[in-house]
Amino acid sequence: MNIPDQSALRSFAGREALRVEAAMRADLAEALAGCDPLLVEVIDYGLFGGGKRIRPLLAILAARLCGAADPALYTLAGAFEYLHVATLIHDDVIDQARARRGREALCRKYGTAPAILAGDWLHARSLYLVGRCAGSEGLAVFCRATTGMVDGEFLQLRHVADWALTEAEYFAIIERKTALLIASTCEIGAIFAGAAAEQRRALADYGNRLGTAFQVIDDLLDYQGDAGNTGKQVGIDFREGKLTLPLLRALAVADDSERAAIASLFAGDRRVESSLERVCRFIDAHRGFGAARQTAVQLADEAVAALAPFAGREDKESLAMLHALAGYVLARNK
Amino acid sequence: MNIPDQSALRSFAGREALRVEAAMRADLAEALAGCDPLLVEVIDYGLFGGGKRIRPLLAILAARLCGAADPALYTLAGAFEYLHVATLIHDDVIDQARARRGREALCRKYGTAPAILAGDWLHARSLYLVGRCAGSEGLAVFCRATTGMVDGEFLQLRHVADWALTEAEYFAIIERKTALLIASTCEIGAIFAGAAAEQRRALADYGNRLGTAFQVIDDLLDYQGDAGNTGKQVGIDFREGKLTLPLLRALAVADDSERAAIASLFAGDRRVESSLERVCRFIDAHRGFGAARQTAVQLADEAVAALAPFAGREDKESLAMLHALAGYVLARNK
Repeated sequence: MNIPDQSALRSFAGREALRVEAAMRADLAEALAGCDPLLVEVIDYGLFGGGKRIRPLLAILAARLCGAADPALYTLAGAFEYLHVATLIHDDVIDQARARRGREALCRKYGTAPAILAGDWLHARSLYLVGRCAGSEGLAVFCRATTGMVDGEFLQLRHVADWALTEAEYFAIIERKTALLIASTCEIGAIFAGAAAEQRRALADYGNRLGTAFQVIDDLLDYQGDAGNTGKQVGIDFREGKLTLPLLRALAVADDSERAAIASLFAGDRRVESSLERVCRFIDAHRGFGAARQTAVQLADEAVAALAPFAGREDKESLAMLHALAGYVLARNK
Repeated sequence: MNIPDQSALRSFAGREALRVEAAMRADLAEALAGCDPLLVEVIDYGLFGGGKRIRPLLAILAARLCGAADPALYTLAGAFEYLHVATLIHDDVIDQARARRGREALCRKYGTAPAILAGDWLHARSLYLVGRCAGSEGLAVFCRATTGMVDGEFLQLRHVADWALTEAEYFAIIERKTALLIASTCEIGAIFAGAAAEQRRALADYGNRLGTAFQVIDDLLDYQGDAGNTGKQVGIDFREGKLTLPLLRALAVADDSERAAIASLFAGDRRVESSLERVCRFIDAHRGFGAARQTAVQLADEAVAALAPFAGREDKESLAMLHALAGYVLARNK
């Protein structure tokens, strides 16, 4: 695909993020009234640490594209950020992470108990808001996504250090872990707008393809990212024994002796710096990075193609922004 | 209050527990179809370890008392067990517990990641089922309870090792931590049945008083329970620096020098066995156990009194069982 100009998206996204943050603050003022001051502080720390608010933006654009104009949309949009942050907080407890979004991880700053509890609080509030704003149909879609994410995490645990992981299994994991929530975000935006089944399905497809592309790029950045930009160390996936698309693609075209050499690095002490360097050279030599990027481009193209039913709509802006978001996913370097 | 005969309640509760368990298994078969086998196993281990299913029973009785007969009631009832178990699983991660219900704690058997994730799964599914069965009004009541429980946990964290804890603060903690979910269970049963506001309020009041009595007895058993019965060690609250009602009541009638002696034990190394023994003797000498029990009896009486609006109903059985449950809370020794 041709990557559309990102500057219009940037200013649009920045404006909408401010509105979403205002809606979140208004909702929290109501929901946390009279609550323990530490709970209020921990929720604030978790939510207002500089996220890009992509999930709320997707909900807003999907709903607008289907004709929604109700200001409650911003409250609904915030619910997707609550859920996203809840999963990040619990992930960081599980991984005993030290940093997140360039700051101390919440579990490290406040401890395990406040982190688990704050995640539970945000989880409950997000489901409540989705039920309130998008009814039991929206709640069903959302719950399928959140329980599916847990299933994806279990699938990933099962395949840690699994040299036999197939590409189909890789995609099954990232669809559940990442794409399902993004697809549900778009679909629930459509449900909020009272959209017809065909539009709901089109937006769910868009979200699924976009979310999958997003994760493929994430897995590329894990090898190729600049830690100064991403705020994350490089090579975490390899060290943790996660086979991701760049390596899978390189292995698919390597010969047996090359595969055996990489297998022994994977089975050995993966924390050794030279192992990671050799794996990177191997992926590069077999064009694994390019092949993975090509897949991400194709997924982004499919995302855009899924929006074809909306081509004749009056709301050109929302459609253009959803197209631009597909470009953003490919262009991002953090 | 006179404690009613418990044998009718026991056989009724046993029969209903089997029905709730059948409904939970049917729901899980649907919700976990195609999911990772370890997720299925962990959820099964968490849910089917011999709980007493008191929360589902309360939902069933409240709904029946308001005239419900729909079999979906058992699915709804199961949702309260899901949520209860989700909180136990996360609590055990936080406390690094070794045992629960006489078996190895889930987080110890399967690890922290599966425990946090399984709790999240059950949490999401419970909210979904409440939304599906009891609509957005039921979901709002439920979400207020689950977020309120988190607030109660934060309040409790704030008062760990707080010698200045007041009785009002003690009740604020246990109302949020325990009574709120039980009150919401009863109220949502009424909402499911399409009950009028007055009936909803009566059942919420019943649940609130019952849940508070339940926690006061729990706090008594922490001092006086037989570990062989309760499956829990004795004296955990004192060792963890939690002031509970028996000690608060004894302190309220002690003189300054006695209070100072206990304060120094509380400020010292609370793991010393002789400290716990001295505190027990102190509570006993100042009739703290009796006073706390008296409060529990009064709360159970208030629970029963809250059901007065239902006195003339045809469904005598549900009302009798709710009365018997108040007696059970007082009589239980585990």
